[in-house]
Amino acid sequence: MTTGQLHLNAFLMNTGHHEASWRLPESDPFAHVSLDHYIRLARIAERGSFDSLFLADGPQLWSNLAQRPAGALEPLTLLTALATATEHIGLIATASTSYNSPYNLARKFASLDIISGGRAGWNIVTTAGREAARNFGLEHEPAHADRYARAGEFLDVALKLWDSWEDDAIVGDKAAGVWGDDTKVHPPRHQGTYFSVEGALNVPRTPQGYPLLVQAGSSEDGKEFASRYAEAVFTAQQTIEDARAFYADLKSRTAAAGRDPDHIKVLPGIVPVIGATEAEALAKERELEDHIVHDHGVANLERLLQLPLGTLELDRLLPSDLPPESAVEGAKSRYTLVVELARRDRLTVRQLIGRLGGGRGHLTFAGTPEQVADAIETWFTQGAADGFNIMPPVLPSGLDAFVDHVVPILRTRGLLRAEYGPRQTLRERYGLPRPANQYAQPVHA
Amino acid sequence: MTTGQLHLNAFLMNTGHHEASWRLPESDPFAHVSLDHYIRLARIAERGSFDSLFLADGPQLWSNLAQRPAGALEPLTLLTALATATEHIGLIATASTSYNSPYNLARKFASLDIISGGRAGWNIVTTAGREAARNFGLEHEPAHADRYARAGEFLDVALKLWDSWEDDAIVGDKAAGVWGDDTKVHPPRHQGTYFSVEGALNVPRTPQGYPLLVQAGSSEDGKEFASRYAEAVFTAQQTIEDARAFYADLKSRTAAAGRDPDHIKVLPGIVPVIGATEAEALAKERELEDHIVHDHGVANLERLLQLPLGTLELDRLLPSDLPPESAVEGAKSRYTLVVELARRDRLTVRQLIGRLGGGRGHLTFAGTPEQVADAIETWFTQGAADGFNIMPPVLPSGLDAFVDHVVPILRTRGLLRAEYGPRQTLRERYGLPRPANQYAQPVHA
Repeated sequence: MTTGQLHLNAFLMNTGHHEASWRLPESDPFAHVSLDHYIRLARIAERGSFDSLFLADGPQLWSNLAQRPAGALEPLTLLTALATATEHIGLIATASTSYNSPYNLARKFASLDIISGGRAGWNIVTTAGREAARNFGLEHEPAHADRYARAGEFLDVALKLWDSWEDDAIVGDKAAGVWGDDTKVHPPRHQGTYFSVEGALNVPRTPQGYPLLVQAGSSEDGKEFASRYAEAVFTAQQTIEDARAFYADLKSRTAAAGRDPDHIKVLPGIVPVIGATEAEALAKERELEDHIVHDHGVANLERLLQLPLGTLELDRLLPSDLPPESAVEGAKSRYTLVVELARRDRLTVRQLIGRLGGGRGHLTFAGTPEQVADAIETWFTQGAADGFNIMPPVLPSGLDAFVDHVVPILRTRGLLRAEYGPRQTLRERYGLPRPANQYAQPVHA
Repeated sequence: MTTGQLHLNAFLMNTGHHEASWRLPESDPFAHVSLDHYIRLARIAERGSFDSLFLADGPQLWSNLAQRPAGALEPLTLLTALATATEHIGLIATASTSYNSPYNLARKFASLDIISGGRAGWNIVTTAGREAARNFGLEHEPAHADRYARAGEFLDVALKLWDSWEDDAIVGDKAAGVWGDDTKVHPPRHQGTYFSVEGALNVPRTPQGYPLLVQAGSSEDGKEFASRYAEAVFTAQQTIEDARAFYADLKSRTAAAGRDPDHIKVLPGIVPVIGATEAEALAKERELEDHIVHDHGVANLERLLQLPLGTLELDRLLPSDLPPESAVEGAKSRYTLVVELARRDRLTVRQLIGRLGGGRGHLTFAGTPEQVADAIETWFTQGAADGFNIMPPVLPSGLDAFVDHVVPILRTRGLLRAEYGPRQTLRERYGLPRPANQYAQPVHA
């Protein structure tokens, strides 16, 4: 059971998480490349004293241009610009361990952490899909287990690089002409299966030591990885029972890995569709569903389920002979979630597309501000969540609605800070300790 | 002979280009990781209506910590933060073609170009040195010619990626539910020697089409590369005769490559040491030289000349049997420049270290504001330069001095704009056309 501070993360995605959000009159079709749009969103989230904001990513063009906004500003670049437009909120960027070099990526996160005053976070992904692989010289997607093996080594190298300067390596002795202490620099000299990295990072140790480590895969490999490295986990859970089971499992794996289970924060995603009355909220949800183009939804579902195009029919159930998760090399946990959702609620393809259109498998919750706050409080106090990944269906209006109407209720109930107070690092916001440097000698009393 | 607008680029480097600058009382030993320091510098350069500012880079720790400030914020990250703190100035980041993937780097520059409103520039480097190679899984530095072959293919792929969306690919038709036009997206489908890149970029075409392409290698390979791709070239030239020869050579190579020679701007570096009187300027120069730690200088020189440590003696000339540039795999043009400088002026190792300490081979010019302006005007009007890469020995004071005292003279003489006027892209500042999209059909009248 969790008590105390509820953690809130704002998952920002161009015109909103509902796939048809861009078609609403209020939406800007160019929002995905508008710095002003993202600054506005970041400031709304700060008004709601959110712990952090977050950007998803993959190094490929996700979809056809016809169906919805495609492409995005690269997250580390966009978050750096947002760092200068905000003061308190944490800034979490997605980046791939499969399609980056540890030296380059470690530098970029270290630089963002310094520029933001210790507010950087890294959502570590291994990047499913052949499309990404083929943008980086590979013919096929690497196998799921291989991607995670590489991710583990990537983290080990990155952690060495971030620790390669001790905190007090810079001396700045002008009179003696000695700027730094070379005995406090520790080149990784790493020789591994996937990487060889010899030299120290060319950035000093940062305010947080290194970015907050975030993870979002819920497959077996994903959970094992999270238990070793992650300090916050985003997850898609449709019911409180599933969420409690996931929460308990992850905490116990983390303890088994020798870590304090309180040092991994679990944040399920929620797509809040907010109305002054329940009827108004449901009407908003219907308006969005009415804007879905079903042909696109069918093609996307066939791609996710790895079926030939033209297999699915709108008004029938999913085929009963889909392969098990273990046979899938793509986004395993998402695959299972979608299949289980369709089977549990006996959804036709059309109904499934409607449900996925809102939050791509995350929990969509339509209701009044009180009802949304009740759901959040219940999950939080019943051991299903340390906080939530808030995924407004429409942006900016859905984030405004959450901050204006749900946040005050959470504050009144003592679940959420009333304001930020003094500046803190992202890790401090999440109640996590600053990591020690693996190379520093312990100080003897 | 060049006429009209003189172009100015501010080459920013922590406490200044003189290696001993950090030891002056005014200098902040932590300037290299201070966003505020760089914002201050960028705003001084904007006050001087500079065309652009520029950050050097290499993916390795350059030097021992003992000798001088080491490490830096990653340039693309820092420039993104500076984009939000400035309005007019161009932002040129160094990035390596040897140690990046085209897809990742093309995205980052496209994102910076969008965020800055068309002010991004890329200083393309191939990165000399074994240290960098060993941070990316290689045992040895790739051969010079190999690095340039990879750079050429990298540029071809990057240009395809930047053109992979036509300018009008986004339609935004909400009523029809059609966001974009897939016939205006052109996946590179590139299969080459160094890279295979299948898919389109996940960023739309940017205000400039792509970042201004800048280059700074002056070897044979470097000049050939520049003549094909570069729109601006930074170069180190010690005399006006050498600079005129370089200028004429590069313009003629560019014409031979089928390009307009006016579409490549040549900017020699200059380290201006400015005093109210000549004596004051020379005293400033001496003060800096007095702060050099010669042991470090000897080691650095031995590394550049690829000699065993302990070969050089402070008060003797360089050895007469140094290998020719063709035998060197590192920074070829810099090697030759240093050797020729030492031989031409018959400098001892101590004297050479003093000369290099100011600008690492770039022209150091100590004098009054009038004298500095005269030198600039002479080079500019005598066919030696389209502008200058200004490398203040001490920062911020040296940039302040240039903007407060030299810039007004250049403006009075009609060489430099009095103010920026309306917003322009970086390419517009340099008087260059926006590149056409290689995939777009010409419009028939």
